Amino acid sequence: MGKKDFLYGKNERINRQLLFSAEIDRMTAIARRTMLIDKRRRENDAEHSWHIAVMAMLFGEYASEPVDLGRAVQMCVVHDLVEIIAGDTFAYDVEGNADKEEREKAAADQLFAELPEDQGQMIRSLWEEFDAMETADARYAACMDRLQPFLHNTLTDGHTWVESGTDRAAVEKRMAVVKEFLPEVYEWVSDNIEEAVRKGWLS
Amino acid sequence: MGKKDFLYGKNERINRQLLFSAEIDRMTAIARRTMLIDKRRRENDAEHSWHIAVMAMLFGEYASEPVDLGRAVQMCVVHDLVEIIAGDTFAYDVEGNADKEEREKAAADQLFAELPEDQGQMIRSLWEEFDAMETADARYAACMDRLQPFLHNTLTDGHTWVESGTDRAAVEKRMAVVKEFLPEVYEWVSDNIEEAVRKGWLS
Repeated sequence: MGKKDFLYGKNERINRQLLFSAEIDRMTAIARRTMLIDKRRRENDAEHSWHIAVMAMLFGEYASEPVDLGRAVQMCVVHDLVEIIAGDTFAYDVEGNADKEEREKAAADQLFAELPEDQGQMIRSLWEEFDAMETADARYAACMDRLQPFLHNTLTDGHTWVESGTDRAAVEKRMAVVKEFLPEVYEWVSDNIEEAVRKGWLS
Repeated sequence: MGKKDFLYGKNERINRQLLFSAEIDRMTAIARRTMLIDKRRRENDAEHSWHIAVMAMLFGEYASEPVDLGRAVQMCVVHDLVEIIAGDTFAYDVEGNADKEEREKAAADQLFAELPEDQGQMIRSLWEEFDAMETADARYAACMDRLQPFLHNTLTDGHTWVESGTDRAAVEKRMAVVKEFLPEVYEWVSDNIEEAVRKGWLS
């Protein structure tokens, strides 16, 4: 299929917006390490992004600073788009994370150029804000991005922790933003880390 | 897995929010009729919901009434949640649509009761607003819900149209909200309906 085959429209801006909309369907083909809760396969980036977006609608009341939930939800749905080109980097993969920033920046240059410039910049800004974790909205969205795979691991016998030999300290480090930003929710995380260690899922 | 196995937390409200978060992972198992653009399989409800949420960030400029995009995106991510229980009803399935409202209402009663009451009501209201298509935000979200499968059909040789023997009039009826609410985008739709008829994808 040629990319332009379906673009019978005459409005170039709309054509680009639709082409980008078609392009991002590839998020469904980017597999993450996390298993779906029913364990039938790994989840993909589209599913993960959707999942954390819904979760972002539920946990705002615990945030230690005011969060614009509508904005955080938008950040959730676009936060992994660059992985269409850069691929998924497993949170506990030290080597993969060493050049992640560089790979994802190059991917962003390529991907967001497909949109009209103003919109490419708008989504890129949201993604950069998410990644920098400096604003309340970004830290909240980052909490969802960590809480959801934690929940999946808890419900799949620690699948990715066991598979990758992750230790307690690495998980605690990864979940630090939840501890800081959603302290009441972190109590649940903390109890479940204890339980995961007790069960041998975390070394 | 017992539903309560992972709930080592002591905060009942947080337990319910996390249980609901785990429950909705089943959206990944609800297959739609629409094919993924690369045709490797049908898309699921989680992927579809994510896809229209991102698209909702792109087409607001064409809306015939002001739209709160943050709100529309939230509507997109929750609009199909009841299908976890009610299943997906194909847009062009006349029989399935006859009792869809009743089945989905019963599903909503069951599903949203899993959340703390205020949040169950909040999400239910968004879903009801989406379904009623009376507000600008809901009509805009409905446009995305129609535009995305149209785009997929256009890019998969009219897959679900051909498979179900859908005719042009049915598609035009389904896309009427786009014609009314996003007239400039509808020009692209209209051109592609012509093309689909010409290619024999629509009778």
